[in-house]
Amino acid sequence: MSFLGNEEILRKKVAELLVIRASGHIEDVQRNYPEWELSNSELQKFLSDGVGGVILFGGSVIELKKRCSMLQEWASNPLLLAADVEEGVGQRFQGGTWLVPPMAIARIYFKDPQRAISLAERYGRCVGNEARRCGLNWVLAPICDVNNNPKNPVINVRSWGETPKSVSELVCAFNKGLDSEGVLSCAKHFPGHGDTGVDSHLQLPVLETDISELEDYAFIPFKALINNGVASIMTAHILLNKIDSNYPATLSKNIIKELLRERLNFQSLVVTDALLMKAISNQYGSGEAAVMAIEAGADLLLMPENPYEAIESICQAFQSGRMPIERLEASLNRRRDALSRLKKINPNINYKDNNSTINFIQDEQMKFANELVDLSSEIRLTEDFKLKDIGINLIRVDNIFSSKFLSSSSPAIALPENAGFKTVILHNLGVNIWQENATEPLILSNLGKGPFFLQIFLRGNPFQGNHFFQEPWIAAVEQLQRYKLLNGLVVYGCPYLWSQLNQVLDSSIPAAYSPGQIIEAQEKILSHFFISDFNQPNLDQEKSITFTD
Amino acid sequence: MSFLGNEEILRKKVAELLVIRASGHIEDVQRNYPEWELSNSELQKFLSDGVGGVILFGGSVIELKKRCSMLQEWASNPLLLAADVEEGVGQRFQGGTWLVPPMAIARIYFKDPQRAISLAERYGRCVGNEARRCGLNWVLAPICDVNNNPKNPVINVRSWGETPKSVSELVCAFNKGLDSEGVLSCAKHFPGHGDTGVDSHLQLPVLETDISELEDYAFIPFKALINNGVASIMTAHILLNKIDSNYPATLSKNIIKELLRERLNFQSLVVTDALLMKAISNQYGSGEAAVMAIEAGADLLLMPENPYEAIESICQAFQSGRMPIERLEASLNRRRDALSRLKKINPNINYKDNNSTINFIQDEQMKFANELVDLSSEIRLTEDFKLKDIGINLIRVDNIFSSKFLSSSSPAIALPENAGFKTVILHNLGVNIWQENATEPLILSNLGKGPFFLQIFLRGNPFQGNHFFQEPWIAAVEQLQRYKLLNGLVVYGCPYLWSQLNQVLDSSIPAAYSPGQIIEAQEKILSHFFISDFNQPNLDQEKSITFTD
Repeated sequence: MSFLGNEEILRKKVAELLVIRASGHIEDVQRNYPEWELSNSELQKFLSDGVGGVILFGGSVIELKKRCSMLQEWASNPLLLAADVEEGVGQRFQGGTWLVPPMAIARIYFKDPQRAISLAERYGRCVGNEARRCGLNWVLAPICDVNNNPKNPVINVRSWGETPKSVSELVCAFNKGLDSEGVLSCAKHFPGHGDTGVDSHLQLPVLETDISELEDYAFIPFKALINNGVASIMTAHILLNKIDSNYPATLSKNIIKELLRERLNFQSLVVTDALLMKAISNQYGSGEAAVMAIEAGADLLLMPENPYEAIESICQAFQSGRMPIERLEASLNRRRDALSRLKKINPNINYKDNNSTINFIQDEQMKFANELVDLSSEIRLTEDFKLKDIGINLIRVDNIFSSKFLSSSSPAIALPENAGFKTVILHNLGVNIWQENATEPLILSNLGKGPFFLQIFLRGNPFQGNHFFQEPWIAAVEQLQRYKLLNGLVVYGCPYLWSQLNQVLDSSIPAAYSPGQIIEAQEKILSHFFISDFNQPNLDQEKSITFTD
Repeated sequence: MSFLGNEEILRKKVAELLVIRASGHIEDVQRNYPEWELSNSELQKFLSDGVGGVILFGGSVIELKKRCSMLQEWASNPLLLAADVEEGVGQRFQGGTWLVPPMAIARIYFKDPQRAISLAERYGRCVGNEARRCGLNWVLAPICDVNNNPKNPVINVRSWGETPKSVSELVCAFNKGLDSEGVLSCAKHFPGHGDTGVDSHLQLPVLETDISELEDYAFIPFKALINNGVASIMTAHILLNKIDSNYPATLSKNIIKELLRERLNFQSLVVTDALLMKAISNQYGSGEAAVMAIEAGADLLLMPENPYEAIESICQAFQSGRMPIERLEASLNRRRDALSRLKKINPNINYKDNNSTINFIQDEQMKFANELVDLSSEIRLTEDFKLKDIGINLIRVDNIFSSKFLSSSSPAIALPENAGFKTVILHNLGVNIWQENATEPLILSNLGKGPFFLQIFLRGNPFQGNHFFQEPWIAAVEQLQRYKLLNGLVVYGCPYLWSQLNQVLDSSIPAAYSPGQIIEAQEKILSHFFISDFNQPNLDQEKSITFTD
């Protein structure tokens, strides 16, 4: 290969394998995580140096659209433009449709598999359509992990189900929908992240699964998607002790080369999960981790901790003969093939935005989002239901700063507030409310007089760890019941918490559950508890209206 | 006039006097306050019906730019496009420059009036330049209220000072800067809102000031600006008992017609403050309030509670002869004159965005923002300063959901966190920490072991009421000192709180103050306390990173 002879060309070709991180916002000062998201001048530099992919976080659909074309302009070759929009473009980018998480459809599957499969395909179409209209061409979904560990702090409701069969059928339907919109998909996290009890963003999960268990279980959705021609697969940051006791999947030849490439015969793109995740970055340098991933069989490197170092180290590995240059050629070819699929899948698709309505979200998608909320919610009202006692609207939310579904206008706060409830929000950075007492875990005096209308927003979210999962909510609910201080309960998110609470909940207490935490889920559920009246906001309550001054 | 003969024309002409509210975001689902911000289809309808102005809140500069041109397209005539960007476009719209509040410059004025005047002019240029580049043509600033009540919960740091002379000089300089960028300004809140102790957004402030006191005091900045040809003046929602014991300023003939038009001889645009503020909406219907404001002498109606009703009632008042049609003609003329000034002020100004750099904020503005932070901060470190004891970073912030300057990445949280501090945030919707005890007001057991690094973000913000002002922070600081639990104190915002705390603060405790709450102010101040190291974020700490999953 001529690459080796010309250092500049080699560097450019290696750079093509990188997927770097950018904010979907346009302006540097808008970045939500300036320590992780490259500045405009850095992006411009990397892209003109040949970097081949960008993963985007945050911003609005209108910003993202402009952003994608900016980035493409800065690059000399076609870019892979990716986002983690597993639950719709609106999950990451304001103004797009945000759907209830896949687990909602998994629950529908129990009752009506055919309907669930058809919903999963529409789900894929919705995600793909909006992604494409924003300028993205690579959706990092579906999650193929079979969630067989209710304490999984990072997959949970993001999973399409708890059995290999249901997950396989649903992810294939999702993938079909996504395909039909002409964007690339990405099955993740190979060889399966469903059975972990720790968050790989914080520490490396270690599993004792052996190859026959993988074959019988975790591999099944991946195999089904490979048969369906999935465009790419993302590796997991987990260590499978019985398969490779030294290296996590992302860096393991045994897993990528032997299992995924050879045993499962996957010939398309393999991308690592974010290389700067703690599980990797803790142990290997930025450059070495990048080389190891390529050596293990990965094609693309997602968010290397230091992109310069990654490019440098990989170049050296080729130049020194540590890796044969054919390895680079093979990955570049697979990347090229993936990009060329963008046009092949459906030549009739208009790659320009052809939405003629005033808003980005089309009526069909808005209806679909609400339909999914309706189909997946559970409302358990008592016969003579009345929320008799006005008291405290007690909300537990994971992260107060990044809970896009919660603001002073969102139904979970505004509806009880309009009915006279005082809002008290418990969150990761708040005042402690727990004490060491198995039957009286809540420090009731901290929470006010009550009675309490309790709303718990809990789901698996990366980077949060699992201490929230460990909070003794079952004992807390029993404590509130004992003192007759609980007048309602809603769980948004985790089905396992809901079913556990359901077991201790007195039948006289109205309760509800939605797998979704989105505005539409709050609205739907609370319409049974409170009268919605957004046209007459009650300014007597302390509200955070940034009004004209 | 022919208006009266043709109902459709009359309705269109009356509609021109309205300024309705829209989100600066593009998509309906992005609206932060859907109960206050009209939807795209409503906006389209009102604008095609002739509504002549829009006030915008929220969104990013790139969204706002697109938004302004969308709105102008929906209208048949040139629009007034307004925003409350008193402290820079970045105060309301992400991606713009956000400056420390005017009170910062007022503090510089004490030491160096000439320098402060020159800074105020640059301040005006910065606001005007960015507003214009976003498509706005009407900046609802400067505040002309002389802040002579330290407990003023709504003006406070938004004011340009505490004496008529300094406020006059600074607002005139600001206005000159704004003018030079070719956008309209708006002096507010006539006849002066500086001496109120309640928030007019929540209840009607009543003042006993008489005309000679107004002449000697509150009128002075307004008179100076009128002499300088200010484009518009906004009325206040306050009741001046000795001048008009029946009607608040916005609805008072004595105040608008007799004082402002006749006594002060102001011949340009008078706009009401938001008509749906509680002080007005509580007492008069939406239609009647609109008619009364026009009758009193106002030209434009800001955010009438129900725009349809406002148009209808005003039309009826003209048709019935309650108001002479010349009144409409006069207001329309003044509006036309204001719009025509947009081009006259400086014909050399390019009304298109001519910013060639990658980011919207120009280097000059970013430097200016930092210069103001430097000039207005106070750092009071002890000689052998070390933050010896790692403990709890205790932050008091007013509104957890709308504090744009605070997130898990902002210096006030990230820097102490990286140094090992645990973050505890106190806010309007949090768990109570106060008890009825004059010398021990804090429930220390709720806050954790300490010691505490205390950061208080407090300033006058509309719609928050003044209970935060009433929290016993002086006694709380004394309590923490007594138990040797205070190892540092920072106040961001209110200078009065800072000076009160300063009086009780032990000289051994490091402390600092900035009139600004912005990221740059946090960074500047905390650089003296903590080592900034954004390149090595510590993932051991619980952080809210929405990462690739």
